[in-house]
Amino acid sequence: MKKQFVVIGLGRFGSSLTRTLIENNHEVLALDKDINLVEKMATIATHVVQGDSTDETVLQELGVHHFNHAVVAIGENLQASILTTLLLKEMGLSKVTAKATNATHGKVLMKIGVDQVVYPERDMGIRLGTQLSSDNLVDYIELSPHYNVVEMKAPQSMNGRTLAQLDIRATYGCNILAIKSGESVNISPKAEDVIRTEDILLMIGSNKEIRHMEDKYGHKW
Amino acid sequence: MKKQFVVIGLGRFGSSLTRTLIENNHEVLALDKDINLVEKMATIATHVVQGDSTDETVLQELGVHHFNHAVVAIGENLQASILTTLLLKEMGLSKVTAKATNATHGKVLMKIGVDQVVYPERDMGIRLGTQLSSDNLVDYIELSPHYNVVEMKAPQSMNGRTLAQLDIRATYGCNILAIKSGESVNISPKAEDVIRTEDILLMIGSNKEIRHMEDKYGHKW
Ligand SMILES: Nc1ncnc2c1ncn2[C@@H]1O[C@H](COP(=O)(O)OP(=O)(O)OP(=O)(O)O)[C@@H](O)[C@H]1O
Ligand SMILES: Nc1ncnc2c1ncn2[C@@H]1O[C@H](COP(=O)(O)OP(=O)(O)OP(=O)(O)O)[C@@H](O)[C@H]1O
Ligand SMILES: [Ca+2]
Ligand SMILES: [Ca+2]
Ligand SMILES: [Ca+2]
Ligand SMILES: [Ca+2]
Repeated sequence: MKKQFVVIGLGRFGSSLTRTLIENNHEVLALDKDINLVEKMATIATHVVQGDSTDETVLQELGVHHFNHAVVAIGENLQASILTTLLLKEMGLSKVTAKATNATHGKVLMKIGVDQVVYPERDMGIRLGTQLSSDNLVDYIELSPHYNVVEMKAPQSMNGRTLAQLDIRATYGCNILAIKSGESVNISPKAEDVIRTEDILLMIGSNKEIRHMEDKYGHKW
Repeated sequence: MKKQFVVIGLGRFGSSLTRTLIENNHEVLALDKDINLVEKMATIATHVVQGDSTDETVLQELGVHHFNHAVVAIGENLQASILTTLLLKEMGLSKVTAKATNATHGKVLMKIGVDQVVYPERDMGIRLGTQLSSDNLVDYIELSPHYNVVEMKAPQSMNGRTLAQLDIRATYGCNILAIKSGESVNISPKAEDVIRTEDILLMIGSNKEIRHMEDKYGHKW
């Protein structure tokens, strides 16, 4: 379903967000006070405007109140971020998402009625830190405080062995959900399927189970 | 296994990365030229130093060459990012990860021998854009250009129905891998298990299959 978004701030985060929304066939009204960033974005977005989002008349003239969802992607100027968010909520937008620089900024945004706070740099710091803490982790979803879904390089010591031989479930409690070999993905792995060193495994389990298994197979997976 | 990391630049991304590495029991030497950021980090990290990473003698005196892995988390000053990366590779560090501001910056980093380039703001822009494009998506892993693992809110229209009744696999080709109800996670869902509106589903399938299923159950999941 096509949706309408307003994106305010076309820095690294806001411009990438705008690009992704357009690629997903949504309509985006993008605003930045920096003419260089506006001109860069104008090649891919249809509605890109130069202006100051802390100026209520600018937002009104753009008809921002006709949109359902706005994202405030202003970073370093806390005052502009907060004032813009406040104006958007006052204008009646049903959903406003804002980027916060730190926890204090996030708390102020919540107080003035923002619907969603995002912390892109903090979240990616956590993601990279988690990835670098393992030799094998490619990506993951934190399903609950206890359960993770992890995408991992298959350990060398598993090379040539079948799922039945490894018996991961019985030994470690975690499950292999899918096996990726090159471009092909096996989404219903069977007992007789063989694991190869270059494979990527999709697994689900508790943090403890997965760490236990990783230790067992050695850090040089 | 305990590892040793150098993190250069304690902005939002670098400080979050440092915190995560320390929480995972690794040793971190952190460096920033801004004394305020250094003092803030000193409460949680043991080795935090104020200094300019583009100054070779600073890096030498800190014994940076004894470390295996460095992360350059300098953002807006491209020259400092590039010069620091170059010095670290010249000093013989086996792995250097650097944050890039845009594709051109990333290309230069690759040319001078960086081992990994990360784009935190771009990646989080893509993640938020993908999440906002769906009404139900909570999180996801892109397993291949075709296959995704998605964490989604269960659609209202599935409420009270069993997996056997829904028959997702046969109808849409995608699989339900796990069902999260409140704090508990069912990692081996069975045919007779019932889905509730507040549940979160973990599914695997092609982008097309998942989108098709989402359309079928209506945007008001
Ligand atoms: N009042 C305002 N009106 C319109 N645009 C604004 C306003 N204030 C800031 N911006 C724009 O928001 C964008 C993002 O702000 P800034 O660069 O401070 O954040 P950042 O956190 O460094 O961004 P990123 O990390 O995503 O690159 C900038 O391009 C800036 O011009
Ligand atoms: N030559 C240098 N030596 C040490 N630290 C540096 C150097 N150059 C920049 N830094 C530090 O790197 C940190 C990150 O840089 P900067 O704020 O430009 O990036 P950013 O992309 O806006 O960061 P973020 O989005 O993660 O907050 C800053 O705290 C800055 O003081
Ligand atoms: Ca900026
Ligand atoms: Ca999650
Ligand atoms: Ca900065
Ligand atoms: Ca940033």
